[in-house]
Amino acid sequence: MLTTELSETEVSALRTNKERLASDLHHSCQWGYGIRWGDGPTDTGMQRLALSKDDKSVRDWFIQTMKDLKCNVTVDEMGNIFAVRPGREADVPATFIGSHLDTQPTGGRYDGILGVLAGIEVIKTMNDMGLETEGGVGVVDWTNEEGARFPISMVSSGVWAECIPLAHAHNLKEVPTVASLPTAASAPETMKSALQKIGYLGDIPCSYKSTPMAAHFEVHIEQGPYLVSANQRVGVVTAVQAYRWFRLNIIGRDTHTGTTAFEHRADALYAFAQMMVRAREVAASKGCLASVGIVEAKPGSVNTVPGQVSFSLDIRGPETEQVAEVEKELRTEFDAIAAAEGAGIGKPCRVEWTLDFDSPAVKFHEDCIDCVQQSAQAVVADASVADTKSLVRTIMSGAGHDSVFTSKRVPTSMIFIPCKDGLSHHPEEFSTADDCATGASVILQAVVRYDRKRFL
Amino acid sequence: MLTTELSETEVSALRTNKERLASDLHHSCQWGYGIRWGDGPTDTGMQRLALSKDDKSVRDWFIQTMKDLKCNVTVDEMGNIFAVRPGREADVPATFIGSHLDTQPTGGRYDGILGVLAGIEVIKTMNDMGLETEGGVGVVDWTNEEGARFPISMVSSGVWAECIPLAHAHNLKEVPTVASLPTAASAPETMKSALQKIGYLGDIPCSYKSTPMAAHFEVHIEQGPYLVSANQRVGVVTAVQAYRWFRLNIIGRDTHTGTTAFEHRADALYAFAQMMVRAREVAASKGCLASVGIVEAKPGSVNTVPGQVSFSLDIRGPETEQVAEVEKELRTEFDAIAAAEGAGIGKPCRVEWTLDFDSPAVKFHEDCIDCVQQSAQAVVADASVADTKSLVRTIMSGAGHDSVFTSKRVPTSMIFIPCKDGLSHHPEEFSTADDCATGASVILQAVVRYDRKRFL
Repeated sequence: MLTTELSETEVSALRTNKERLASDLHHSCQWGYGIRWGDGPTDTGMQRLALSKDDKSVRDWFIQTMKDLKCNVTVDEMGNIFAVRPGREADVPATFIGSHLDTQPTGGRYDGILGVLAGIEVIKTMNDMGLETEGGVGVVDWTNEEGARFPISMVSSGVWAECIPLAHAHNLKEVPTVASLPTAASAPETMKSALQKIGYLGDIPCSYKSTPMAAHFEVHIEQGPYLVSANQRVGVVTAVQAYRWFRLNIIGRDTHTGTTAFEHRADALYAFAQMMVRAREVAASKGCLASVGIVEAKPGSVNTVPGQVSFSLDIRGPETEQVAEVEKELRTEFDAIAAAEGAGIGKPCRVEWTLDFDSPAVKFHEDCIDCVQQSAQAVVADASVADTKSLVRTIMSGAGHDSVFTSKRVPTSMIFIPCKDGLSHHPEEFSTADDCATGASVILQAVVRYDRKRFL
Repeated sequence: MLTTELSETEVSALRTNKERLASDLHHSCQWGYGIRWGDGPTDTGMQRLALSKDDKSVRDWFIQTMKDLKCNVTVDEMGNIFAVRPGREADVPATFIGSHLDTQPTGGRYDGILGVLAGIEVIKTMNDMGLETEGGVGVVDWTNEEGARFPISMVSSGVWAECIPLAHAHNLKEVPTVASLPTAASAPETMKSALQKIGYLGDIPCSYKSTPMAAHFEVHIEQGPYLVSANQRVGVVTAVQAYRWFRLNIIGRDTHTGTTAFEHRADALYAFAQMMVRAREVAASKGCLASVGIVEAKPGSVNTVPGQVSFSLDIRGPETEQVAEVEKELRTEFDAIAAAEGAGIGKPCRVEWTLDFDSPAVKFHEDCIDCVQQSAQAVVADASVADTKSLVRTIMSGAGHDSVFTSKRVPTSMIFIPCKDGLSHHPEEFSTADDCATGASVILQAVVRYDRKRFL
């Protein structure tokens, strides 16, 4: 059986195996399982930091599994693992399904993991059916997507896309808080040394030129509440919102809390508090998000007004220009807030901005989106509701994913499935076996449809 | 010459030696000098943590100096050093002048140090004049007033007043940030072990019963801008404002910054920001102060909305009741702020309060205040202005001092002198030699006047 010889009805009837997918997924979670939150055997979170011992174990299992499925496996200089099921045409790039097997220190069983396991399930289904594709079909495990151990998210797909220099990635040092976890080394080490230590520093250059792809599809839990609260089954991801990460410093003046009237203070923390309140107002007014995740106040004494505060600011929005607008308005507003605090003594606060990361909005590829859209409608047709069309919606991703970087070089799109309470990066992160299987079936069809689009 | 035989005019003419006081003060600052801020030989801050090597050196010097001045020196279980110049009457308690020789990690040359050095200068002046007192005159160095190394301020005068249990004070562990300073031990140690290590664990019980005092006077830099900005020379301290220190925890929910709309968040840090802004408004409306010196947000990741925040809250006001009112209103307001954040998902933030320290307002003793008031007027009469009376004002202390605890057991009052920009707990803390000498002359007269009040 060959993809290009299937009828449209036959393509729409393709399904993956729900039980096998669930079984494989939880099997792979034996390496690095984390905090227990329920009584069931799989009721734990995950703690599988990139390039840890547990990450090595699941990588070894992934490679063995793919070899058993007759795939050719290669590993590049960033430890990205590419497993390709050959197609009929030998010299064309494969269509890839990919995500990541690493997790946050207190992560769950679905973020990233589902994306790779859905790929494995697609290959198993194709093998079972004896379904031949024109181009090959690959599954990729991208290294350190979370950025939890080595502090750049999606760093290895970034190197592959030649957006991040290899040396910069190799020299990343693991973050100290993570170094203290049992899964990490006792002393902070570089990403390159961690790759070497577990035997995953491959010899293939990490580049889209050395490991080309025809396209990249990724299934992922939504990590938000929209699908689950609307009882929808599939999100056809058309875009990823823009975001900018800043580090800000406010410089005021240390003074005694007991002897310094408000009008004599240049209280950097009070300025921060006003800025954070204002940031939400401004972002909301422009349909964007603004968040502070990290704040540090110095000197950090009960009876000293903090003279120095540093904090992170994460601005996100549907369009790059909207994020820039929020930034612009906040720069003006923050300057005004700083200037007012301490004005009474002629020593106002100052605020300084540093841009740490800039990710413009990403629009996924129309061809890929079409494949996912058609596949999603076909799969949800199984549901016992009158209007199955309403079970699918287009959606924008709020978070970054490896697909952001692949989309810079090859046609890409993503599929979201619902997760409980929209919760993610949390041990209780959960998606039902049904929803996981729906995601895998959609990506199976999408890959088949894309193969037909290429060669029909 | 005997105090009780002096005329009022003779008392008013008593002055200390400006040059000698300045010279002794800076001499004592050779032990533990800190950050340099100017070119002059004494243009440095101080870094003399309680019971450090440098603190031992200055204590040794203090004891030797007092013995050379024919004082009897005793050391109690908290390392408090009492040096008494005997009076004519052998069996009555001495009138004490006291403060502390320890400093903040980035402190200056005047806070505390001036108080002890003024005491030394008073004894030197009395010796030079051959002035006999009816009761003895003592100088006391209270241990760890700053609370910078062992985290309770005024802890040793607190034990002396039997307001703080001895065992609690002895078991205090030095704070970790301070432990990393060169002046402290390499591993955190207890106050008792630190006292033993430098040979200052005395055998006299630390109590007002074992070391009784007739009264306690303290001269101190203002640590605020009122005197200096009004060109006034002396503050007659009549009271110390009330304060309460709290530790608050806000419990929200960790979520992804990119995928969680504002209405789906229970952002503990956003709740904190609103609380801090509101705290200033409420405190100001009631003539009080509210300050946050410490804030910690967890988990502390750029792209995670913090689910947990803890912070310190320092509320101060002229009257105990005013502080209680601010606390009461803030409890209500903070609950409302917490309840609103996360209400959209039915999982609002919660806020919990813990009281760490409660210091009711202190009214100093009328007799002591009178002595200081008369002495201050007499000393500023030297000034070449028409209305010297206006150079003296009554003032309330915003900060705590050892005099807060002595006032619980014996008549007490304080004298403030101006400091540059009202700056304190800062290397550039500065008072002129003239102002220091004014403070010492005022305390000299106040002690003489108090002695006359007792025995005339």
